[in-house]
Amino acid sequence: MPQLFTVLTPQEAWLRLEPYLYPIQRVERVATEEALDRVLAEDIFAPSDLPSFPRSVMDGYAVQAEDTYGASEGSPAYLRLVGEVSMGKPTEITLSPGEAALVHTGGMLAARANAVVMLENSREIDAATIEVVRPVAKGENILQIGEDIPKGRALLSCGRWLQPQDIGGLLTLGITEIKVFHRVRVALISSGDELVPPEDEPKPGQIRDINAYTLSSLTLKAGGIPLRLGIIPDEYQALREAAKIGIREADTVVISAGSSVSSRDITAQVVNSLGKPGILVHGVSLKPGKPTILALVDQKPVFGLPGNPASAMITFDLFVTPSIYKLSGCSQPPKRYELKARLTRNIPSAPGREDYVPVKVEDRNGELWAEPIFGKSNLISTLIKADGIAQVPLDKAGLAAGEMATVRMF
Amino acid sequence: MPQLFTVLTPQEAWLRLEPYLYPIQRVERVATEEALDRVLAEDIFAPSDLPSFPRSVMDGYAVQAEDTYGASEGSPAYLRLVGEVSMGKPTEITLSPGEAALVHTGGMLAARANAVVMLENSREIDAATIEVVRPVAKGENILQIGEDIPKGRALLSCGRWLQPQDIGGLLTLGITEIKVFHRVRVALISSGDELVPPEDEPKPGQIRDINAYTLSSLTLKAGGIPLRLGIIPDEYQALREAAKIGIREADTVVISAGSSVSSRDITAQVVNSLGKPGILVHGVSLKPGKPTILALVDQKPVFGLPGNPASAMITFDLFVTPSIYKLSGCSQPPKRYELKARLTRNIPSAPGREDYVPVKVEDRNGELWAEPIFGKSNLISTLIKADGIAQVPLDKAGLAAGEMATVRMF
Repeated sequence: MPQLFTVLTPQEAWLRLEPYLYPIQRVERVATEEALDRVLAEDIFAPSDLPSFPRSVMDGYAVQAEDTYGASEGSPAYLRLVGEVSMGKPTEITLSPGEAALVHTGGMLAARANAVVMLENSREIDAATIEVVRPVAKGENILQIGEDIPKGRALLSCGRWLQPQDIGGLLTLGITEIKVFHRVRVALISSGDELVPPEDEPKPGQIRDINAYTLSSLTLKAGGIPLRLGIIPDEYQALREAAKIGIREADTVVISAGSSVSSRDITAQVVNSLGKPGILVHGVSLKPGKPTILALVDQKPVFGLPGNPASAMITFDLFVTPSIYKLSGCSQPPKRYELKARLTRNIPSAPGREDYVPVKVEDRNGELWAEPIFGKSNLISTLIKADGIAQVPLDKAGLAAGEMATVRMF
Repeated sequence: MPQLFTVLTPQEAWLRLEPYLYPIQRVERVATEEALDRVLAEDIFAPSDLPSFPRSVMDGYAVQAEDTYGASEGSPAYLRLVGEVSMGKPTEITLSPGEAALVHTGGMLAARANAVVMLENSREIDAATIEVVRPVAKGENILQIGEDIPKGRALLSCGRWLQPQDIGGLLTLGITEIKVFHRVRVALISSGDELVPPEDEPKPGQIRDINAYTLSSLTLKAGGIPLRLGIIPDEYQALREAAKIGIREADTVVISAGSSVSSRDITAQVVNSLGKPGILVHGVSLKPGKPTILALVDQKPVFGLPGNPASAMITFDLFVTPSIYKLSGCSQPPKRYELKARLTRNIPSAPGREDYVPVKVEDRNGELWAEPIFGKSNLISTLIKADGIAQVPLDKAGLAAGEMATVRMF
């Protein structure tokens, strides 16, 4: 028996699904240097102080600050030069009052030194004497032990999406292996009697399936691993078997339904037959994307997206991408690049519906303008021509030429 | 003999190097489905019409539009239902005047039909008759042959950075293999007597090399392939041999010099010894990054970056990343996510110098604020805490708390 569903706003639809999305429990240890764009599955605390020895942050002379107090151009302080600290070696110099040791940026401080005089504020008088023309305070131009990262300090939290600086921070502390979440596996099913694989020549009435590949690409962009289950005819049993494989082998299943209403109906029946609670949302006040299905089967999210390639991409972006991040354990997903641009033309919509329209963004004399690219039936070519997708908010009956729109850039 | 160089602005420095950066000539054929984020090395024209047959964009009835003219709720047009077009099959139906055929979204149009009446504007009276309550125009709800992409149309240009919709556009036309540029090889050399590999325990005076890994990660983010040549001591001959390997095996070489001035001097001598024209820029009015070297050897760009990890990342981002895109042949590199935010604190600078300061960005009541994260000597920990990098423009002597700053987000 077909169930009745109320059409929800995109935000309401998301909130029906979102509470069920927990990070997957599978973790693995990987080499830190291979962990770019992975999601950290543990909290990291500094195992040691960084730096582990007092370092100079300048080229100059390690001194006892007290010896420089009152020094000026007119009345320099004279210090005995007792040696040079080689880079990469422990210093063997211990300063007595009145002494200085040459030190390079990053070099270890001589023992009993407590400040560094910059080269620019000193002069070598002879091989054994320097003069200092400006005083330094205790600690000046020095990085103390633990001043960058003290031992025990929380460095990175579980859920961190690892970026180049994080790889650096981990390795600088000698953390060469870390625990990360597995990449989320996304099963992709293309359903439709009219579909053939891209390498085939379509016969009259047939078209090539591209959703398997565009949605694979979007999966990769979100850090997931696509599991392509191929083209399935619009038959209840065949689609059900494919979906069962997806639920067993993957963390989430995405079915792009055939274009026809009957294909979409079969998708809905299959999803509801697979397990509890089944369909959570059927129908979203969204264009394109009204027939979108959000469901949950065995704690795994299952999505029924429209078969039209552009519609499938836009709804994937709205619902599946954020779900992949949630399942990945990612607490701070990459920020979407959005901008505001003035529309060159009206975009018609209806109040109570969110519309997404591909746009080309141009800079005209320092002002950003968005040119809507309309096309019958959301053609894939409109997305290729576009730089991003403009949004018409729910409460607007469209946006007029000259109005500002938010554009999600590709 | 040391050469004299004028310190240039970052923009001037870039313009000294940029004219020498040509796309690498190596191309390869790859499966289109594997080509996400690669750069297209050929122009693509549509080999056939898309769609290749007239398709319905709605669920409805294929009709001859003339039969519906004048139809209304009060005076419907009655048409003879002569069959249904199955999805994925060529239609065997040819319409005569007064006839209609059921068709699904994406289905092939019956022969001699020239429009589709939406289901919503029709009613089935009996198994052989429908009534139409609104007229359709010729061509309405139909996608004509070639209407999405006509045969011969330029689809994608050489230099295109391939995105999910492009993969879809290529595959929908049956283009399953394409020519792409090789990924750009970036040789990375860490020079410094104080450096040990991350897996080693540093002795007093030593630190772990992390530039090899942070710059590898930035290389990957820009679509390049890192070629790590390891840690080289601050010795002219050793560094020269490593740099020669880099120039031979890679498309560009990045040396992060040791922290000391002498290490930087050796880097400059080595770069100038390798070939013509050698150093183009030595010294940029940039903080951090003043000692940056931009050079060209055997038509390959060579970079000398500061050894400090945060400074190395910031200068890589400013000079090496755009160079990788140029070498990749990429005509439209991914757009940087920049935003404007109000500063919570003053950032001191000097006129004639560009400053880059890590900031944390917060939304406070709908307004974005950027909190500068200062630290002695550009510590890696400041980048980990930050969300992006705020820029103090060249002509400003700093930015005051409350002023707007441009922030490049990570």
